[in-house]
Amino acid sequence: MLVVMQRGATAEEIRGVVAAIEEMGYQARPWPGKQRTAVGLVGNDGKVDASRFEGLPGVLEIIHVTQPYRQVSREWKGENTVVRLPGGVAVGGDDVVVMAGPCSVESEAQIIAAARAVRDAGAVVLRGGAFKPRTSPYSFQGLGERGLELLAKAREETGLLIVTEAMDSEDVDLVARYADIIQVGARNMQNYSLLKRVGRAGKPALLKRGIAATITELLLAAEYILAEGNPQVILCERGLRGFDAATRFLFDLTAIPLVHKLSHLPIVADPSHGTGLRDMVIPMARAAIAAGADGLLIEVHPDPARALSDGAQSLAPDQFAELMRQARGIAEVIGRRVAEPAEVT
Amino acid sequence: MLVVMQRGATAEEIRGVVAAIEEMGYQARPWPGKQRTAVGLVGNDGKVDASRFEGLPGVLEIIHVTQPYRQVSREWKGENTVVRLPGGVAVGGDDVVVMAGPCSVESEAQIIAAARAVRDAGAVVLRGGAFKPRTSPYSFQGLGERGLELLAKAREETGLLIVTEAMDSEDVDLVARYADIIQVGARNMQNYSLLKRVGRAGKPALLKRGIAATITELLLAAEYILAEGNPQVILCERGLRGFDAATRFLFDLTAIPLVHKLSHLPIVADPSHGTGLRDMVIPMARAAIAAGADGLLIEVHPDPARALSDGAQSLAPDQFAELMRQARGIAEVIGRRVAEPAEVT
Amino acid sequence: MLVVMQRGATAEEIRGVVAAIEEMGYQARPWPGKQRTAVGLVGNDGKVDASRFEGLPGVLEIIHVTQPYRQVSREWKGENTVVRLPGGVAVGGDDVVVMAGPCSVESEAQIIAAARAVRDAGAVVLRGGAFKPRTSPYSFQGLGERGLELLAKAREETGLLIVTEAMDSEDVDLVARYADIIQVGARNMQNYSLLKRVGRAGKPALLKRGIAATITELLLAAEYILAEGNPQVILCERGLRGFDAATRFLFDLTAIPLVHKLSHLPIVADPSHGTGLRDMVIPMARAAIAAGADGLLIEVHPDPARALSDGAQSLAPDQFAELMRQARGIAEVIGRRVAEPAEVT
Amino acid sequence: MLVVMQRGATAEEIRGVVAAIEEMGYQARPWPGKQRTAVGLVGNDGKVDASRFEGLPGVLEIIHVTQPYRQVSREWKGENTVVRLPGGVAVGGDDVVVMAGPCSVESEAQIIAAARAVRDAGAVVLRGGAFKPRTSPYSFQGLGERGLELLAKAREETGLLIVTEAMDSEDVDLVARYADIIQVGARNMQNYSLLKRVGRAGKPALLKRGIAATITELLLAAEYILAEGNPQVILCERGLRGFDAATRFLFDLTAIPLVHKLSHLPIVADPSHGTGLRDMVIPMARAAIAAGADGLLIEVHPDPARALSDGAQSLAPDQFAELMRQARGIAEVIGRRVAEPAEVT
Repeated sequence: MLVVMQRGATAEEIRGVVAAIEEMGYQARPWPGKQRTAVGLVGNDGKVDASRFEGLPGVLEIIHVTQPYRQVSREWKGENTVVRLPGGVAVGGDDVVVMAGPCSVESEAQIIAAARAVRDAGAVVLRGGAFKPRTSPYSFQGLGERGLELLAKAREETGLLIVTEAMDSEDVDLVARYADIIQVGARNMQNYSLLKRVGRAGKPALLKRGIAATITELLLAAEYILAEGNPQVILCERGLRGFDAATRFLFDLTAIPLVHKLSHLPIVADPSHGTGLRDMVIPMARAAIAAGADGLLIEVHPDPARALSDGAQSLAPDQFAELMRQARGIAEVIGRRVAEPAEVT
Repeated sequence: MLVVMQRGATAEEIRGVVAAIEEMGYQARPWPGKQRTAVGLVGNDGKVDASRFEGLPGVLEIIHVTQPYRQVSREWKGENTVVRLPGGVAVGGDDVVVMAGPCSVESEAQIIAAARAVRDAGAVVLRGGAFKPRTSPYSFQGLGERGLELLAKAREETGLLIVTEAMDSEDVDLVARYADIIQVGARNMQNYSLLKRVGRAGKPALLKRGIAATITELLLAAEYILAEGNPQVILCERGLRGFDAATRFLFDLTAIPLVHKLSHLPIVADPSHGTGLRDMVIPMARAAIAAGADGLLIEVHPDPARALSDGAQSLAPDQFAELMRQARGIAEVIGRRVAEPAEVT
Repeated sequence: MLVVMQRGATAEEIRGVVAAIEEMGYQARPWPGKQRTAVGLVGNDGKVDASRFEGLPGVLEIIHVTQPYRQVSREWKGENTVVRLPGGVAVGGDDVVVMAGPCSVESEAQIIAAARAVRDAGAVVLRGGAFKPRTSPYSFQGLGERGLELLAKAREETGLLIVTEAMDSEDVDLVARYADIIQVGARNMQNYSLLKRVGRAGKPALLKRGIAATITELLLAAEYILAEGNPQVILCERGLRGFDAATRFLFDLTAIPLVHKLSHLPIVADPSHGTGLRDMVIPMARAAIAAGADGLLIEVHPDPARALSDGAQSLAPDQFAELMRQARGIAEVIGRRVAEPAEVT
Repeated sequence: MLVVMQRGATAEEIRGVVAAIEEMGYQARPWPGKQRTAVGLVGNDGKVDASRFEGLPGVLEIIHVTQPYRQVSREWKGENTVVRLPGGVAVGGDDVVVMAGPCSVESEAQIIAAARAVRDAGAVVLRGGAFKPRTSPYSFQGLGERGLELLAKAREETGLLIVTEAMDSEDVDLVARYADIIQVGARNMQNYSLLKRVGRAGKPALLKRGIAATITELLLAAEYILAEGNPQVILCERGLRGFDAATRFLFDLTAIPLVHKLSHLPIVADPSHGTGLRDMVIPMARAAIAAGADGLLIEVHPDPARALSDGAQSLAPDQFAELMRQARGIAEVIGRRVAEPAEVT
């Protein structure tokens, strides 16, 4: 960390900064420049609260030289984290893992039909919400535990793994009993009670980026999970809040190579939420794989026109099958392969 | 709601939309135009999920004519909601209510000193965090219940009311035992489990706008609290995520007259978080009152240079006293008055 | 256009809206709903200024049913526009056209070296700025006409076509004498004098999207060029202003399939500006092709470490050659091919 | 400027950075830290192009210690710039200067009526567009030189000064013949040809902030005008592009105290464009003055319901008169006064 002094800061003001640094147990290194003096803080391990210094007399600004996160960083761990799931599925290695299914679990018939359709087209994980965060209190809020039971039934019938969301720290243990991957939604990316509980749940986590979260904030949210002892974290880009109402969100695919540069954690992309428009899902799913995504999260509904939520961005089964064909081609060009579903015996 | 068909949509496609509307129990009114046909949905009460229609063949787009929220709207209740607090303090009437204090409760000496300083300058509510949401897991996370006890002690000594944050649905009952107003922070604006629990806690709520939340989303979050039976909600503008790093957030003061137009709920402004810079707090606090804010939330620390969090945006007691003098003048110009602290006997 | 009245709007207020519509020469169709009345305007051809109605008593809001642009829309012209360039190069058909070169023309040696390098790797158009828009008046502003002459020399030596920017309506004729494609930069997307002059210059145009422009605004800017009689317009996505300083811009690849849906004009992508980071250029260039881009604009410098501008986002020639190899593979998967440079004889 | 090396950067890489700095004529000061080495560049005067260094091997990032602008900065000139206009009107001193009038000049009757109305209510400058930048080529584009003549006639009749926009460098001399202040619109904030010409026009300039411009970029745009020898620049905040369609723009009032901190130039606020909603103009105009604005720009139309552009955000004359009454009260509270129109003899 570097504390930059104002032009004309007095020697006393500089000594004040030095004293404040030393009082916190760090070393201070004043660095006089032509126009300004800067004071370096040596021994910064990401725990220093910069705002302490911003308030001191004569201080112009604080410059962070190192990132505030630790265990999630590429510097902490050079090789990729590979999240290993039952049945040999691995996220973060050479395979591109496709997770697909409806927005919400609506009924046994619907989730079984969806599971079969996505399995037949090549998905290896079934997605589907039992607890649904909805902007309006009057919208359909999900089937709750009954939805989890139906997901487990679909897993039994198809061999697919299950990813589903926990919305509250109180729900985590319940969701962990049914799910193979516990999803933390975008609205909850900074719900720290939830993150800590997920860090102790003993299951891999899928952490979605908030709609206005920087990459640093996404990595710090993941750090909450790792700090509780759970290194099995998959990140997910699902679109940012933008200014153009032509799409539901602004899908930030550059997040994929950027996360790969800064962190060892895998990252998948959700073009269904990322664009909000069915016509955009296939091209942007292809783009995500080309950008290096470790997997996809795709909304597929057996009958999109009758979906209780997110119908407009759900693919029909035949559209999803077409997407899978193109996905395999793109993955091959960049030296990867789309993970295949296990045989159900 | 209006379902706009594509140019050249077939009669069969239009019939499909009509049928889908009627199947949901509403009336459909086709409205043929020169270039396109639109189909109106009559009886819309905010519960209809538009995405159901976006997926139908021939549909171009969905247009919402009414707002999705209900009980929070000005149309639902014409007169202002006045949130009445102990000691005769009222938020949402003619008074401008100033809530001030440190970011975090750090020690008994600190919170008592802060409480006395803000009370002497004219605040009527003491703010201070016992549970602190922090972007990094390694930052100071607050004193927890001990912090609540210290806030109660400061109330006893100064007569100030207490506003403090609950971060998790599990904490709400504990916070409600100590606080006069339960704060829901910006990161938790869409933490629905928390909102519902606050709706049943029997205490007024202060709901902060998320950093990327639209006014509609803020009002829908408040609707979650009202829908549980708690009409005592104070909204708070505290800055949006912007693109200019020159300020910490982008303080959106237009939210104040806009909320007053759309809703009967009171709204206060937090220029400390809204700008993140001590030099900006006084002018933007004045601006908030001039824009019609029903109150202010101001960070004041007895010794900002030693604050454990948010030091750079905290006012020193003498700066806060100067702000209060100017605030009284502006309030008077627009026919309001700054609420005075009660006498302590 | 639909004028939605407030709940409880009087009959007189509704008649006022009807009269205002008829006074402008359109037909009015009142449409009474359960909660509100709406008045449709029939005959809307994109020329109606909605703000006229927003100000009338009793009006709640204005809803646009049709897009404000005309000639650029897919509804106006169903088949793709193919911009045909000298030497048989065509943008907007099956070919993916790669345009590459340095940010600025710096010297004869530099531009000739860059041209040869990008030609050898497979580019068909040479990019390079002679007039440079720079945020600071003290930055290098380009070589001006001398830069245009050097570009022409590079074209002669390599057979590459030339794309270069005109910054001012006064420069257009000069640039048109040298360039095969006249570029309008992002800062000038709404410089209407410039757009009109480019519309009369008799050369194809490359129109870059402004950093805060909606797709509708991009298409309306293109409409200015088409309205002057020049249908040869190539759009370009080059990154939006975002809130995360980790990248220079927020690269919005969804713009590509969205433009293809709404318009018949071709669109290319510029991942060099779109990300601002050399490490991100190759993955995001691949992603752009996978999303359906009709071409790429890539910064390549013979010696990036010594570039006078944009060094950090320029590829070295060997990196560009690697990108071209991957680009050919991705294009093939989606049924396209990367355009090959003509033989120079 | 500080060049921060990656962890583990080699001595050779550090020497490479030192050599590059010295080659440019500056001094390099390596500063070895615990985790990383940083290399300071001494003698930085804002002309160094940082991207040159970002591309060097071993470099992690570039940190700017000084601002890139010079003549506009508060460090360059400590006391406020006061822009002096004919008739003793001064912008940037104690007076708050109100500029008001219609969006566009539409006819002699309209502009004269508007001028009288705003003069009677207390405005001292008449605003009105003769050249209108419009998003659509099919919208009303202004009366051109005829509009300028009508503005001059209104000045003659009312004694008001004139502010009006030049859209193109070719128009500047024409506009300068009629206007007392030449406006550069938000879309043209980075139209450098226009800025340079305005810098040589011999008249004060009103420079509007672009809808996605940082404060640094606004100040650098002003630097273009000052660099040509014209120090008479008034800045203007008029709203940013936001994500909430509830208002037309996101009005960033914190820009006002921020510009006052960083620069000696005056800044005014335009709540008409900044909010886009008539109901919001009065509260936000009050807020702008409370925040310290040196003036206001307000759209007033004699008959808003019939305005050819921006009708929805224009005040009627009686609403404007009410705003002026409140503005005087707020100005007084903060020790300023609203400038009064001169007597016409």
